Amino acid sequence: MELNNTTICAPATSGGGAIAIIRVSGDKAIEVLCRYFFSHGKSVDPSSLKGYTLHHGSIIDGDEFIDDVLVSVFRSPLSYTGEEMVEISCHASSHIQQRLLRLLISNGIAAASPGEFTMRAFMNGKMDLSQAEAVADIIASESEAAHRLAANQLRGGFSAEITKLRNQLVEFASLVELELDFSEEDVEFADRVSMTMKISETKELVDSLASSFRLGNVIRNGIPVVIAGRPNVGKSSLLNALLKEERAIVSDIPGTTRDYIEGAVHLGGLLYRFIDTAGLRESGDFIEALGIERTLKKIDEAEVIIILVEAYDSTEYISAFAGSVMEKASIKNKKVILVANKSDLLPEQDIYTLSRSFEEAAALPVLFISATAGTGIDELKEFLVKSVDLSHLETPQYIVTNARHYQALTATSEALTEVINGFENHIPTELVAMDLRQAIYHLGEITGQITSDEILGEIFSKFCIGK
Amino acid sequence: MELNNTTICAPATSGGGAIAIIRVSGDKAIEVLCRYFFSHGKSVDPSSLKGYTLHHGSIIDGDEFIDDVLVSVFRSPLSYTGEEMVEISCHASSHIQQRLLRLLISNGIAAASPGEFTMRAFMNGKMDLSQAEAVADIIASESEAAHRLAANQLRGGFSAEITKLRNQLVEFASLVELELDFSEEDVEFADRVSMTMKISETKELVDSLASSFRLGNVIRNGIPVVIAGRPNVGKSSLLNALLKEERAIVSDIPGTTRDYIEGAVHLGGLLYRFIDTAGLRESGDFIEALGIERTLKKIDEAEVIIILVEAYDSTEYISAFAGSVMEKASIKNKKVILVANKSDLLPEQDIYTLSRSFEEAAALPVLFISATAGTGIDELKEFLVKSVDLSHLETPQYIVTNARHYQALTATSEALTEVINGFENHIPTELVAMDLRQAIYHLGEITGQITSDEILGEIFSKFCIGK
Repeated sequence: MELNNTTICAPATSGGGAIAIIRVSGDKAIEVLCRYFFSHGKSVDPSSLKGYTLHHGSIIDGDEFIDDVLVSVFRSPLSYTGEEMVEISCHASSHIQQRLLRLLISNGIAAASPGEFTMRAFMNGKMDLSQAEAVADIIASESEAAHRLAANQLRGGFSAEITKLRNQLVEFASLVELELDFSEEDVEFADRVSMTMKISETKELVDSLASSFRLGNVIRNGIPVVIAGRPNVGKSSLLNALLKEERAIVSDIPGTTRDYIEGAVHLGGLLYRFIDTAGLRESGDFIEALGIERTLKKIDEAEVIIILVEAYDSTEYISAFAGSVMEKASIKNKKVILVANKSDLLPEQDIYTLSRSFEEAAALPVLFISATAGTGIDELKEFLVKSVDLSHLETPQYIVTNARHYQALTATSEALTEVINGFENHIPTELVAMDLRQAIYHLGEITGQITSDEILGEIFSKFCIGK
Repeated sequence: MELNNTTICAPATSGGGAIAIIRVSGDKAIEVLCRYFFSHGKSVDPSSLKGYTLHHGSIIDGDEFIDDVLVSVFRSPLSYTGEEMVEISCHASSHIQQRLLRLLISNGIAAASPGEFTMRAFMNGKMDLSQAEAVADIIASESEAAHRLAANQLRGGFSAEITKLRNQLVEFASLVELELDFSEEDVEFADRVSMTMKISETKELVDSLASSFRLGNVIRNGIPVVIAGRPNVGKSSLLNALLKEERAIVSDIPGTTRDYIEGAVHLGGLLYRFIDTAGLRESGDFIEALGIERTLKKIDEAEVIIILVEAYDSTEYISAFAGSVMEKASIKNKKVILVANKSDLLPEQDIYTLSRSFEEAAALPVLFISATAGTGIDELKEFLVKSVDLSHLETPQYIVTNARHYQALTATSEALTEVINGFENHIPTELVAMDLRQAIYHLGEITGQITSDEILGEIFSKFCIGK
């Protein structure tokens, strides 16, 4: 992918609000601005505008006043993209923004595609690919933990870790390649046993990173929770009790796929997303109404399952219902809890005994709650918080949040397995060297040392416009 | 209303987008920022930050990295509010924005109320009240014409006009007051006849401004259009044909009250809003289905009425239907057109004759169209454009867009009528002087020379947060 030398523009803020920002990057950015920018009624000499300065003035096209604006000027290479840049802060009217963009475009400035500013930053060496990806992640981060991971990746912590691993492999490779150069002399520079050990150690780190993806993924996207229960067992009341006081925050989150999510709640720095199992409510048939069929389909997507029953349900029903859920859930290593709702309808002294027999029937931890009275909700939240092991977060560089990185790490690990097998089975050095190069190649994909146009296009197309 | 000396903060952009801006204004703005802002890893001395400069760095709270930010610094009085200000550009994540706002608030900075930044700008003499109101208008402006009026008001054109009128009245008043000072000597400094003439001239200008409000209001809020017609006459097809290619723009407009609007289209720099008469479609009863009842209720809100019939309707029906609409519409001075849809189902040679008999039956201009085939749509758009007389727009300072200004102008005009009557009926000078002062008072309300806390609170509460 080659950088073209066009100048690009895009809005960097979304509709609404008081202020909007139009970003312009490229050789012509400052010069084109100065054709229309007047400060204190006077035109401005482009060469007089220093980097990291702000300028108040008006954008005027001929005799048409467009807006009072504030212009931020950045000089190459000290800008986000590394190019000449201006950011025009205007009033957040859709008309003004469209008018300004039209004006820029009519002066030969191109409308930027999604992520094009960050792609230029990457192409100009302002950040590596993993950092560029973190820009999109940090913008989308909805919880403290997701933000922490994205921030660490943005600051280069993750890249440093990957580069360290890659450098180790490059070192091994250079030893192996050296042997190849002298292959006719049949020398063996590297001790096979010690090298196998070292590569195994590296592979373990790669595997540990790859295995962190499951956690990283739920941190980044929120922990999916399914509430499994028949109709009228109190699913909506439970959801409302959990979401209480949190609704406002949830509705502020952009990009939540509302079609499939019934709500989301922040607990312990993480976002818990409740997956819609709406089908349950509509069925009249009893067997279907148990909700097992439909709920089971959702269990695959969930990390946590709340099996919701009523406090006065029979142990037979609980055993059967929990059993059919667990049949599917247990093999996938999900966290499951049995929650018995409407406990306020039972005498308090019965609950302890019932709790024991429910635990036995379901072979699960049991919690008695009353969603309407609000009892037991805090305990349920505590269970949710504990269901995700966050001890890894102490060293966030070891958490992979990106599916592309996960794939690259898996491919690296597979190549390293081949290397180790190769050494153990005395495969010719040429072939082992190829596998080692393969492993290095895949690690390089993460930070962008190795990239293809296709990968870049794919990555940056997911960005929002203006970034 | 007194300015308190708290420092305030608020987001100035709305959710979504790539970049978000947090605005901070007040004595503590720069100092509090510097407690958490690190540039190139080093803390920054608040006194080293000059106005109109940009600074790249990180916001770090203890050991928690919050975000990479760009900070704009403004020094009092050269800022929007006239106070010390910083604007923090961060990544547009809701988590980061909330985190930054929490950090500022925990340092004794208050969350700004809507419009508080602009109110401070007004209180600190950075703009007059009419200009402050224009800030909200320019942000909300959806069409070229609305933007032009708001921009003119923002730049002080309207204020200058009002101030000129007010100064004339002040001059007259000083002559009259002079007489009062010498009242015991029974002098008459001002020639009553020439003064009556001059005040009449001023009153005419005030009246002309007041009467521009109807136009100003539709320019600012869009021209309301009602399509009156029975079910299945092709209302939806007509709407779709008019909205074609414009939908994308319309859906971008924030704040459109979707509940009552079926769509909006930009034509000739103006926004035409189609008012929902959805009730029409649901009725089964024939009389009711004529839609007269429900549509008539909407006619009050409309500037333009499209009476929609079918090309093969009887002249009797057309006469009756158009008659009942016009009965209401004609007295209100609305623009009305009879549109005969489905003209593609008729032989072309019949249309001219039919057109004549329809014109006669309805006593209205007639247009034959086919909404589905798209014929006649451009002509209809042309009618819509011509239905609003924009000749006033050449001198936009003569157009009032604000209901508060309209009320003040009406009150001024009434007081001036009393003054003129007073002179003509030889009412004692003391009483005439009171009316004159009243007129001056009301004009002063527009630019904020005269204001009450209540008025200010009312005006700024309508602003968005962060402005």
